[in-house]
Amino acid sequence: MQRAPASPGDPVASIETPALVLDLDAFERNVDAMAREVASRGLRLRPHAKAHKTPAIAQAQMAHGAVGVCCQKVDEAVAFVEAGIPDVLVTNEIVAPSKLLRLAALARQARIGVLVDDGRAIAPLAHAASTMGTTIDAYVEVDVGAGRCGVAPGEAAATLARLVAGERSLRFGGLHCYHGGAQHLRAPEERRGAIAAAASRAAESRDAVLRSGIECPIVTGAGTGTWEHEMASGVWNELQPGSYVFMDADYARNTPGDGERRFEHSLFVLAAVMSTPTRERAICDAGLKAFSFDSGLPVAWRRDDLVYRKASDEHGVLEVAAGASAPSLGERLLLVPGHCDPTVNLYDWIVAYRGDRVEHVWPVAARGALG
Amino acid sequence: MQRAPASPGDPVASIETPALVLDLDAFERNVDAMAREVASRGLRLRPHAKAHKTPAIAQAQMAHGAVGVCCQKVDEAVAFVEAGIPDVLVTNEIVAPSKLLRLAALARQARIGVLVDDGRAIAPLAHAASTMGTTIDAYVEVDVGAGRCGVAPGEAAATLARLVAGERSLRFGGLHCYHGGAQHLRAPEERRGAIAAAASRAAESRDAVLRSGIECPIVTGAGTGTWEHEMASGVWNELQPGSYVFMDADYARNTPGDGERRFEHSLFVLAAVMSTPTRERAICDAGLKAFSFDSGLPVAWRRDDLVYRKASDEHGVLEVAAGASAPSLGERLLLVPGHCDPTVNLYDWIVAYRGDRVEHVWPVAARGALG
Repeated sequence: MQRAPASPGDPVASIETPALVLDLDAFERNVDAMAREVASRGLRLRPHAKAHKTPAIAQAQMAHGAVGVCCQKVDEAVAFVEAGIPDVLVTNEIVAPSKLLRLAALARQARIGVLVDDGRAIAPLAHAASTMGTTIDAYVEVDVGAGRCGVAPGEAAATLARLVAGERSLRFGGLHCYHGGAQHLRAPEERRGAIAAAASRAAESRDAVLRSGIECPIVTGAGTGTWEHEMASGVWNELQPGSYVFMDADYARNTPGDGERRFEHSLFVLAAVMSTPTRERAICDAGLKAFSFDSGLPVAWRRDDLVYRKASDEHGVLEVAAGASAPSLGERLLLVPGHCDPTVNLYDWIVAYRGDRVEHVWPVAARGALG
Repeated sequence: MQRAPASPGDPVASIETPALVLDLDAFERNVDAMAREVASRGLRLRPHAKAHKTPAIAQAQMAHGAVGVCCQKVDEAVAFVEAGIPDVLVTNEIVAPSKLLRLAALARQARIGVLVDDGRAIAPLAHAASTMGTTIDAYVEVDVGAGRCGVAPGEAAATLARLVAGERSLRFGGLHCYHGGAQHLRAPEERRGAIAAAASRAAESRDAVLRSGIECPIVTGAGTGTWEHEMASGVWNELQPGSYVFMDADYARNTPGDGERRFEHSLFVLAAVMSTPTRERAICDAGLKAFSFDSGLPVAWRRDDLVYRKASDEHGVLEVAAGASAPSLGERLLLVPGHCDPTVNLYDWIVAYRGDRVEHVWPVAARGALG
């Protein structure tokens, strides 16, 4: 873990660059807005903590009524349970016996859920839980359109639900119906259409489970790009958005539909200019190790004069707009990451500021938690 | 820092996935081959440690005759000096006063170099060194074709060299002439041509420095894609390759020229299959947080039956070749990263194995060292 780039109370102007910084006012408005909207429909909110990996943020979400958080990895779950989060759903399949035992042990301290999409994975999960003397919620993952993990909709889901229900150390939690591919469809009608199709697959699967005589307490899913559609569908009763707390340049490229909420950019990389070799070009200190580039380049925040054009490991090449004056050596700028989740995973610390003052320096406790 | 995915002595079969793993036999052949070739020409080898960020690897390079290492960041230099590396060149411009002081303090324990490409940066650097009572080697960075940082070739380099020479707490180290853009040109004649042009710019700059009455002890640069051309040029006397210890999928796409050495793939991500939803598709546990995707997708190592097609945060979608049988649940595979440097930066540990046994588990001490 690296030294923190600032301390609480520092002026923002003294944060060492590059640093991952959070505008607390915008962040708090995002947390509050999502919590209110989901609560107003009487649904459960279980935000995805893979986006932030930060216990302090999970605690803020719990304080706003979240029922718990989602994670993708057992070691992320460990970090959140150790920080006192009482209910964690690992929205992923876990196969390795060592990880299953770690997960099962965690259920001594918190309510723990995990996904299954293969009958052969159920007995090993049940065995780990009974070995540790715990009970785990097992959710059946249904492929509702993403083409990633998950069983086919309908009877296959009911078959797995019955297998889960037959294990003494497992509880059937419900269905995990997440359409990752729909989150970044740009046009609102594309997102609406994708979630309408996902809703019918989820409903078909839920009905098959119910017909087989098993209760289906939860249908869980949704993300920042589509949550309003899942919320309105009448099928999902738990929503899992993650990126809404931060937003990023890629989510900002989605065109909002009528009445759809836009969350605010709250997360930035604070960078500094380290070289101004020509009038048209400035080089900043944030490159491939400061951002994830999987969903495009970072975007200079409220700077019409600068465009982030390319990156090498520790350099970002900024193009200075025609007619604009070049930035000065040491000049600082905020950059919006292309994709927030894997960008956060590069940093040991989030520097949370309000106005011109650092208020918190939060450890990204689950950074690098791959296991 | 996350828990290590293995311990020395463990069987490779028990390493928890995903893990960054190093084939020690291939790695040692790479380290040895580069050291021998550079030494046989009487040149200095200063490998770039931004590729590995790992003191144990720097020590192996020093044991093979390296004069020191390169870093890109002050906090990387801190990690290597703390680990006992006696000579570190930060191949980057440093502007912030707090970083300059940290760098200058480091020169109490090791020989420290850094780059300048702007006259206004020299007095602050000298001031930091005199404040700390140390002397720093300042190298003038020349833009020999990469279009990133650096002064124009020729007189501009000599002007900065004179400014450096006029500062009591600085030594003029020489010229930094690195052509990053040439490393990944695919055709050997393109790389040869780019370095021939860079060599004439570097020579022009060196000659301008010499004409102004200043010695130019070192001309340093080169990378894994082009080092043989810089070595043969007669202009460079110090080489900085980094990726050669590991290789990656992107470097493997360079076509080697006649007689050019190919280094061996030694670095892999060990992943496991966690879902086999259809006959054509398997999902592994290594995605956007296990690889950097800036230079393309990972490649399945010695597996004709599997192609890594796309990723989400913690999922990799593998396409099963027509006619091949699907991998089994939990099956493990090695994946070659697209780009080694930013992939290494995702991991807290490198698991170094020989045959089927883990020999070392090395901390990636400079991981996340952005400051």
